[in-house]
Amino acid sequence: MSDQPIPTLRDVIAARANVYRYLRPTALHPYPGLSKLVGANVWVKHENHQPVGAFKVRGGVHLAARLSTEELAGGLFTASTGNHGQSIAYAAKVRGIKATIAVPEGANPGKVAAMRALGAEVVFHGADFDTAREWIMGEAEARRGRFVGPTEEILIEGVGTYALEIMEDLPTVDTILVPVGAGSGVCATSIVAKTINPKVEVIGVQSAQAPAMQKSWQSGQLVTAEMNTFAEGIATRVPFANTQRIMRKYLDDFVLVDDSAIKQAVVLMLEHTRNLAEGAGAAPLAAALNLKERLAGKNVVLVVSGGNMSLDKLRAILAATA
Amino acid sequence: MSDQPIPTLRDVIAARANVYRYLRPTALHPYPGLSKLVGANVWVKHENHQPVGAFKVRGGVHLAARLSTEELAGGLFTASTGNHGQSIAYAAKVRGIKATIAVPEGANPGKVAAMRALGAEVVFHGADFDTAREWIMGEAEARRGRFVGPTEEILIEGVGTYALEIMEDLPTVDTILVPVGAGSGVCATSIVAKTINPKVEVIGVQSAQAPAMQKSWQSGQLVTAEMNTFAEGIATRVPFANTQRIMRKYLDDFVLVDDSAIKQAVVLMLEHTRNLAEGAGAAPLAAALNLKERLAGKNVVLVVSGGNMSLDKLRAILAATA
Repeated sequence: MSDQPIPTLRDVIAARANVYRYLRPTALHPYPGLSKLVGANVWVKHENHQPVGAFKVRGGVHLAARLSTEELAGGLFTASTGNHGQSIAYAAKVRGIKATIAVPEGANPGKVAAMRALGAEVVFHGADFDTAREWIMGEAEARRGRFVGPTEEILIEGVGTYALEIMEDLPTVDTILVPVGAGSGVCATSIVAKTINPKVEVIGVQSAQAPAMQKSWQSGQLVTAEMNTFAEGIATRVPFANTQRIMRKYLDDFVLVDDSAIKQAVVLMLEHTRNLAEGAGAAPLAAALNLKERLAGKNVVLVVSGGNMSLDKLRAILAATA
Repeated sequence: MSDQPIPTLRDVIAARANVYRYLRPTALHPYPGLSKLVGANVWVKHENHQPVGAFKVRGGVHLAARLSTEELAGGLFTASTGNHGQSIAYAAKVRGIKATIAVPEGANPGKVAAMRALGAEVVFHGADFDTAREWIMGEAEARRGRFVGPTEEILIEGVGTYALEIMEDLPTVDTILVPVGAGSGVCATSIVAKTINPKVEVIGVQSAQAPAMQKSWQSGQLVTAEMNTFAEGIATRVPFANTQRIMRKYLDDFVLVDDSAIKQAVVLMLEHTRNLAEGAGAAPLAAALNLKERLAGKNVVLVVSGGNMSLDKLRAILAATA
């Protein structure tokens, strides 16, 4: 459990100056085709339009902007094969500092190449993610660098700026559906939305094939669970304590959807919005289609958290749904 | 030949107030993966992020904002199965007026549904586009409405705002590659870029399977040509005189690329940017890959004009390149 204070709306508002120094607000578009399918007024928050294709970059640039020159001198360190790693690589690049990112042996070559293309040093270490993570934490300490965990409060402050954009662009929003991986997105969204308007309902979404965060939230315990989803952005095996504490305070509901429904939602997103959503990004649509009665006639925002799906996965999904 | 004055940079600057009342600036992102492929510093201008998935909506909302209440009273009329039709439907919707759009019998049901979902009345008339167009022009006159042609100067003024964003976000741009359909995008881009900095090179791109605009520009005559491209956004059979006159004054070069190369570029865009580009939107990447020597080391912007590719086409392209 983190002993850091939970970020507030005020922290998110303060983060905007940092975030908008490097990034623009993303689009919130209404989609008549999705609205018809769900039976509600459906908007999509397009975090897939971010420069590294995912919302996390908001947290990364805010962190890099807030740290002092001394804190940044040793560079940023993290362990990630996904959007968090790309976010930290991007943040380091815009601040002109070094990022060192540990990945397990055999990590996805495409994702490694993407982080290297952003200027990060990628180091293969250990057989699994936990080994890589422990090692890089040691490296950060030894080299007086700054290790950045995926759910740090400062990242949540930056990420919250997308939720603030939703509340400004659609003040009449009723329900926001957010995919949950480590939890920074859903925490940021619920802090911002519930503080501005407690009547707004925030619903987390995870895959039934990787329900650790959902089971933990539901039970009030930190529960490890199976992790067999294809959707990397919401593939969490061990729950994160500091986001769980925030979710317990702010989150209204947390639902599971099957991987098969998420894949179908990827196709529906392409068809009706012409946007490529990664599995995590499409999960809110899958959830909305399961919750049609509850959402009927409401103003619903689906947070498309990112679009980083590999070509091979996309090709397989499209072939399977032909 | 239009007798309207050619739009100027000043007209485009004036159009911003109208455009930004309804739309946000779109992203201009650098892509290291594309840069490596082309051997230049490659940025993508993401007009596919617009609400109707294409740049034309900038012209539509500017037109609707500039017309007086009297001029708008009879509604907007046009003939289009593509991005122009969706743009006019969107513009009418945001101004709260009616759009009537004629399409030939047998028009793509998906596109008809998209225009209807935006509130437009879609009328099937005639066996081909020319018949539909002549009919709707008569209807507009009879009903005292405003017919909107696809290359009107007022549309070019609105469209030019994306070029202004490019020049502001990347003042060191050397070359801008723009797909050419009716020509509003390439005219707007070259007016803006060449007026701000005559050293910027603007290159038009069309399919070798539909080269009417390119042949016309090259020969100085209005030349009709075959139209067999899969890329609807650049499928022009009969050239447009009023955009040709602007292109002759401002455009630096105009190249053709094969449909097969455009399809490959759609796949490369997905792989390296995670964005769905329609054929027209991917054509600049195909051209850049053909012009590697000329672009070497330069700052190159690819205008992804839109992302409205049908699921069937995407599925076929991905299956063919597996």
